[in-house]
Amino acid sequence: MDVLYGLHPVEEAIRSGARRLDHVSVARERRDERLERLIGLCRETGIRVALEPREQLTRLARTDAHQGVLAVVRERSFLGIEDLLAARSDAESAGRSNGNRFFLALDGIEDPHNLGALLRTADGAGVDGVILPERRSAPVTATVAKTSAGASEHVRIARVTNLVRSLEQMKRANIWVLGLDERGTPDYMDFDFRTDCVLVLGREGAGLHDLVKKTCDHLLRIPMAGQVSSLNVSVAGAVVMYEAMRQRRQTVETVKKPAKKLKGLGS
Amino acid sequence: MDVLYGLHPVEEAIRSGARRLDHVSVARERRDERLERLIGLCRETGIRVALEPREQLTRLARTDAHQGVLAVVRERSFLGIEDLLAARSDAESAGRSNGNRFFLALDGIEDPHNLGALLRTADGAGVDGVILPERRSAPVTATVAKTSAGASEHVRIARVTNLVRSLEQMKRANIWVLGLDERGTPDYMDFDFRTDCVLVLGREGAGLHDLVKKTCDHLLRIPMAGQVSSLNVSVAGAVVMYEAMRQRRQTVETVKKPAKKLKGLGS
Repeated sequence: MDVLYGLHPVEEAIRSGARRLDHVSVARERRDERLERLIGLCRETGIRVALEPREQLTRLARTDAHQGVLAVVRERSFLGIEDLLAARSDAESAGRSNGNRFFLALDGIEDPHNLGALLRTADGAGVDGVILPERRSAPVTATVAKTSAGASEHVRIARVTNLVRSLEQMKRANIWVLGLDERGTPDYMDFDFRTDCVLVLGREGAGLHDLVKKTCDHLLRIPMAGQVSSLNVSVAGAVVMYEAMRQRRQTVETVKKPAKKLKGLGS
Repeated sequence: MDVLYGLHPVEEAIRSGARRLDHVSVARERRDERLERLIGLCRETGIRVALEPREQLTRLARTDAHQGVLAVVRERSFLGIEDLLAARSDAESAGRSNGNRFFLALDGIEDPHNLGALLRTADGAGVDGVILPERRSAPVTATVAKTSAGASEHVRIARVTNLVRSLEQMKRANIWVLGLDERGTPDYMDFDFRTDCVLVLGREGAGLHDLVKKTCDHLLRIPMAGQVSSLNVSVAGAVVMYEAMRQRRQTVETVKKPAKKLKGLGS
């Protein structure tokens, strides 16, 4: 039995329908507008609501950070790599993408907070799908759902048994495999992301596994102006995902209307 | 008595000289190359090294994540806002900046991990200084130093009693005050950062205080393509700091040599 907790993650889980919910537990003691709305949403979508003592929720969530709401869910279902590659993204169907796809692959991210933050950013930057290896990678738990502010329920995720094999498969589908590496060249900002690509992020501290690194078409680097040699992996991933979004959006906007540049200084 | 722990933070503290160190404690049980180098560095710079049982370090650090090394330091000294504005940055003196300055101001960041991550990114993106309010802001503790990978010892930090007053002062010095806000316009990527500016980040969850928001010349927004409405504050800050770096670097490079654009797809 898996649980999700917190207003955001539970609401997102209901709306997305990505996981089959058994029921939602609400703390008897808590009553406010957001929680009432959530209960209304459960009723609309036919999900059973149980009123329970706050301590019972704390016991199930194994933390008291549940904000008075918890959902008991079946295991999240993941896509296969083929489904991920076949699916058109929401951004694309809504015309917000220029037709190129951008994927994220995580090579051994074991910290649930980093995984949650990366999924949240992937959702924000309109990433078309995330590839997670089955082993040596944080599972998509309640902590991940909470840190991701519910994004883990929305983002397309494929779980793969062998990351290198999946990356090879993506290469054959004409998707560029881009690793992020301290000793890489070129700088990520000099790379043209207006093409199908997958960004591969390595382990906290140790970086990409050797075999994964060898599979990459390019190793990109984030320039470091100061004394520290690298950024936190969730920060590094965000910087590159948003640069890709910026470049890709420019193309779409250029087609639709000339981009207007706001000048900071008036004169 | 303040302590710093972990190989990176202790080494950075020794190299930067920003804090006066009383002595460095090393776990008797641990012996490896990096630690030996650190001990050598202490000897060179005349810092006393004490060999102690591992448990004693765990007791002082209040965690076992100390990697066998810990520095007992005097309180970190902070700059005043005038000193921060007067100082020329390393990047500038090294010709890596186009002469414009970029500051970061934190309006009530209370999570030490977020503060640490933001200082690390500020160091990486070559930010000219960070402004922290004295109250309702995480203090620069050992946890912050560890999360920042030592950057908290290097980055110029001013502690101010009244953030709004300091921002007003910066405005008078012709520095643009840019808040980051979910409901802001324009998108950060449409803003021209090649001017003196300070980026103001608000609280986790609640965002900028009203008075701070009113002081801003512009409120910038990060576009969110998916279902979640905002990014984690340390991620959001990083995305904007690196976009500013990208734009400012372009100018420098254009002057020096024409920027070469690497095309992802060969054809």
